[in-house]
Amino acid sequence: MADDTGRLARPVAPATSRRGAGLGEVRVDGGFWTSLLEVNAGATLRHCRDWMERLGWIANFDRVAAGTTADGERPGWQFSDSEVYKLLEALAWEHGRTGDVGADAAFEELAARVVAAQDDDGYLNTCYGHAGQPGRYTDLSSGHELYCTGHLLQAAVARIRTTTGPSATADPLVTAAIRAADHVCREFGPGAREQICGHPEIEVGLAELGRALGEPRYTAQATLFVERRGHGTLAPIALLGPQYFQDDVPVRDADAWRGHAVRALYLAAAAVDVAVDTGDDELLAAVERQWTRSVERRTHLTGGMGSRHQDEGFGDDWELPADRAYCETCAGIASVMVSWRLLLATDDVRYADLVERTLYNVVATSPRSDGRAFFYANPLQQRTPGGDLLPDEVNPRAEGGVRAPWFDVSCCPTNVARTLASWPAYTATIDGDVVTLAQYAPGDLRIALDDGGALGLRVTTRYPHHGYVRAEITEAPDRPVTLRLRVPSWADGATVTAPRAAGAGHGDPHTVHPGWTEVRRTFTPGDVVALDLPTAPRLTWPDPRVDALRGTVAVERGPLVLCVESHDLPPGADLADLRLDPSVPPVPHDDGARVRARLVPPPATPAGRPPFTSAPPAPPSDTTDGGTTDNGTADVVLIPYHRWAERGPAAMRVFLPIR
Amino acid sequence: MADDTGRLARPVAPATSRRGAGLGEVRVDGGFWTSLLEVNAGATLRHCRDWMERLGWIANFDRVAAGTTADGERPGWQFSDSEVYKLLEALAWEHGRTGDVGADAAFEELAARVVAAQDDDGYLNTCYGHAGQPGRYTDLSSGHELYCTGHLLQAAVARIRTTTGPSATADPLVTAAIRAADHVCREFGPGAREQICGHPEIEVGLAELGRALGEPRYTAQATLFVERRGHGTLAPIALLGPQYFQDDVPVRDADAWRGHAVRALYLAAAAVDVAVDTGDDELLAAVERQWTRSVERRTHLTGGMGSRHQDEGFGDDWELPADRAYCETCAGIASVMVSWRLLLATDDVRYADLVERTLYNVVATSPRSDGRAFFYANPLQQRTPGGDLLPDEVNPRAEGGVRAPWFDVSCCPTNVARTLASWPAYTATIDGDVVTLAQYAPGDLRIALDDGGALGLRVTTRYPHHGYVRAEITEAPDRPVTLRLRVPSWADGATVTAPRAAGAGHGDPHTVHPGWTEVRRTFTPGDVVALDLPTAPRLTWPDPRVDALRGTVAVERGPLVLCVESHDLPPGADLADLRLDPSVPPVPHDDGARVRARLVPPPATPAGRPPFTSAPPAPPSDTTDGGTTDNGTADVVLIPYHRWAERGPAAMRVFLPIR
Repeated sequence: MADDTGRLARPVAPATSRRGAGLGEVRVDGGFWTSLLEVNAGATLRHCRDWMERLGWIANFDRVAAGTTADGERPGWQFSDSEVYKLLEALAWEHGRTGDVGADAAFEELAARVVAAQDDDGYLNTCYGHAGQPGRYTDLSSGHELYCTGHLLQAAVARIRTTTGPSATADPLVTAAIRAADHVCREFGPGAREQICGHPEIEVGLAELGRALGEPRYTAQATLFVERRGHGTLAPIALLGPQYFQDDVPVRDADAWRGHAVRALYLAAAAVDVAVDTGDDELLAAVERQWTRSVERRTHLTGGMGSRHQDEGFGDDWELPADRAYCETCAGIASVMVSWRLLLATDDVRYADLVERTLYNVVATSPRSDGRAFFYANPLQQRTPGGDLLPDEVNPRAEGGVRAPWFDVSCCPTNVARTLASWPAYTATIDGDVVTLAQYAPGDLRIALDDGGALGLRVTTRYPHHGYVRAEITEAPDRPVTLRLRVPSWADGATVTAPRAAGAGHGDPHTVHPGWTEVRRTFTPGDVVALDLPTAPRLTWPDPRVDALRGTVAVERGPLVLCVESHDLPPGADLADLRLDPSVPPVPHDDGARVRARLVPPPATPAGRPPFTSAPPAPPSDTTDGGTTDNGTADVVLIPYHRWAERGPAAMRVFLPIR
Repeated sequence: MADDTGRLARPVAPATSRRGAGLGEVRVDGGFWTSLLEVNAGATLRHCRDWMERLGWIANFDRVAAGTTADGERPGWQFSDSEVYKLLEALAWEHGRTGDVGADAAFEELAARVVAAQDDDGYLNTCYGHAGQPGRYTDLSSGHELYCTGHLLQAAVARIRTTTGPSATADPLVTAAIRAADHVCREFGPGAREQICGHPEIEVGLAELGRALGEPRYTAQATLFVERRGHGTLAPIALLGPQYFQDDVPVRDADAWRGHAVRALYLAAAAVDVAVDTGDDELLAAVERQWTRSVERRTHLTGGMGSRHQDEGFGDDWELPADRAYCETCAGIASVMVSWRLLLATDDVRYADLVERTLYNVVATSPRSDGRAFFYANPLQQRTPGGDLLPDEVNPRAEGGVRAPWFDVSCCPTNVARTLASWPAYTATIDGDVVTLAQYAPGDLRIALDDGGALGLRVTTRYPHHGYVRAEITEAPDRPVTLRLRVPSWADGATVTAPRAAGAGHGDPHTVHPGWTEVRRTFTPGDVVALDLPTAPRLTWPDPRVDALRGTVAVERGPLVLCVESHDLPPGADLADLRLDPSVPPVPHDDGARVRARLVPPPATPAGRPPFTSAPPAPPSDTTDGGTTDNGTADVVLIPYHRWAERGPAAMRVFLPIR
């Protein structure tokens, strides 16, 4: 892949001076994310394709192309096309990331079947508008037609940005996407259908395709869709109010995210795109305000978003139940999309912090280690051990602590696939001669600087399990440049070691506070900037307004949320009876931690009555004699949350009662 | 109403020696329930009729009768017929309870329109099987046809039991119900469609109609439906597993209630009916086992059942969130149905205790004091004040702390109506010469004894607000009879005063323990049995396994659960910041209580991060210096939970944090 394409190979390219790294600029090599990326490439992409063939979701395109839609029932939900598009997007990024010709061939083969289904006027959807099907745009609330088109556009963006030279726009899928985008602009432009889709996504698709092609019409149409929302024009869906699809309050007026989490977050991502590209500071401020309120009051410890199963939605402020946390995998991915855009727009480190929290504890939690089963919801507590491996069949949205190979509504697997395939693009930002490492992974970077030349870095680290990150300069221009590193919000006591002036060796470590820490030098190859982040396990307490978590504490280690799985309790012990002694600091244990805890006998339940009694609970064990080992205490092991449910049926808790 | 009819006028008449009181045997007069019954009679019955006229749910019957079902769309959900039937049932009980000729006329008028829609073969449903409609029984999972028929049968039972003499079975609605029941037996009998309805209800309808008419075929068909369930024969509903409609495990094998709460409880009620009438002790034991497990681990303090909005269903053991408690009004009513049947079957006082808890804290909570708006869900916490009065239009299942005049799925208002209209029938049981007062309300009883004669009682009490219950004998046979009174499970320290031998005056009060307390005498008119129940407010603590309520305490008073409404806090105070001091006993205040509490300043939220910090929470205020009044403490008033949301938008909590 040519240098220029490598630099451009990134999902988000706003009209800001700050940009994200291109896939060609970052090569991860070993460690946490490399494992996930390799499993994604080696198993998940194929897994997704096989399932969609098996279920006929890909063949739906063949049926439209062959004009046989009236023959028999169409398999899949009305939005199943979007899964095919997300897989195409994933294949494009995978090809861009590694040059894998197999991914490229798979893309071309799949794309050919997709484009064959496009109608003459650019409309492309396998569920509407053909023989035996409902008419186009007859059900904007639930039909997901524009949602699907948005994913088609994002697949085209990935193809454009991973294809060398002018051939990009001649690519069949890109051509089809352009025709589809033009169709949308005609059908939904000013004076035409002045409506919106029940599920946002067309907006980010149009905005990014507009950026990729330099086509302002697409940005303008995305802006229209964003602005039209919040005026109650969508026909209601039974039992769900307009907040379900954010049609209750205009984006620029809202104070918090509410309703369906993925919808809310895709919309917010689009609002940032539009705000940045049109210079709409008020709109950008609105999304920042919503981010702040929603992160501070409606976001789980894992970064997961969504507290209600009913509408897959956000709850009220402080409504963060561990057991019924929804934390849909797709909402985690959408949250990364929003925060990444805000990071590029504002340079505020808090956005990079949330990206990290969410990547490690939501996105990395979804796929099973073999890449062939996935969590859809990511709760923080499982009371009863789930089943063993789920059968090789379509599952409802998985609950019960078991990853499923495929879902009835199967948005998450392909979303994980496209996110992992483009993961290196979220690791660094570049602004002029300032290169910022936002996420840490071992590997090599060669970042093209805006004023010419490049900064080369070799990163060595065992992050997230160890906090030492060593960045050795492998190439640098003969002028001062700035290397910035992120000190995560949890990393109190971090130190950095930087080279002195050229040739004068390295200085002593000095303490740095959470936020950005920067070293500006005329670097020489061999210079090393080293960051040392404290990754001792630590206790983390919920805000007392989070009712569902009162009287509990969690354990974190570096960016990882830890959990107790019932596998690690003594035989016969019930996880519900475990009480952590917070007076004894947790200590490292493998990639997790070990804590002092005890098993309390459950109280006698009042017979034949609801579980409430006139007897106050036993006093907490932690008040006065902390550190002493009475009978019944024991050391208990915690593992990283993202790796739970890999050892067979288990109960699990992130938050452990202390009394 | 003739004596005999008055004795028979009761919803449940199992083949046991123990029976419930008839509506003609109990006249409540003043106090808590009289208010509710009068509002029900004076406002709710009319309200329900008017809404169903306005929405066309009654006219749906006219359309079938006129053969115009193909003209335009049918209003209402597929189960809207059942609301008409529940209103008919309510009108019948109301007529039976009071002799109100207006209710009788309303019944006849409405019944005439219903029966005109019956097909020649007895099928009666306005949504299926006619021109322009889907075919009969083509969607047993969701169609609710047999569910609707079950409610028709229950309306007929009410009519039979409140109509004097042999004319009962000649009543048009009763005739129609018999034809409908015969149709069901033909269509779903052995060798015919061996299937079930997605929503149980036909089972209780058939069982009770069989009892009312002495028709064993109906009982047999109810038995078939109960036994067929749990074998996974219902086609799945998207995203919901077979436990949603209890088709996962046969009734006699299940250990706990799960899935949709109303479905689970209607099924359990039917299982008791079938078990009792067929002498199936194993089946009865299964329901008792399920009751025990579900009440002890899956039931809210209010008696409310259901912890999940998604499927209106039970949660796991110990999953009892205050904020997302579903506690559907209909599930409360269904729970009363189950417990009442189990009480008649077993005489175990715990069933009467749960009936009381549920009546006062779920059923009485639903209707607004004017009887023209209702809660559908009954959560135990409202974080943000709900809106003011909801507009006079159809609402989704109301959330947000506001009672709504009508719902899209409007099962609750008519269910409340039929329950209140028959409420006196749940107050007493009779078995031989043992008369038991199971619930307390002022009024007169004249109970026909099995061996002839009657026991007359005049009950004077201000229950539930005061615990003194005085039962004066107004009529008694010249032989010993037993008067039993219920000492509720919460009433430690109750005393009873009973007459000595005839003419020898009254004894001293003596302490009685929770359970039944009985006095056996040859009573003389003027004798008084008096029960004194302690109704001082008391603290009630959740089982520590109920994660969502850890670190909180509730206040109860007599049978009433209390709550704090934000109206009763100082201006500007946030209910989330309230901390109760459990070392200071609550004291009575109006019908509620006053407690010592303080308002704690909310902690600083970590900016731009989820609400979790490395700082442990402030230590509890209640550990050592209980009783002292530091700065910041104040007295806070609690009101009965059932009367919250009557004073405009409010936040509300039943469970108050102590730290």
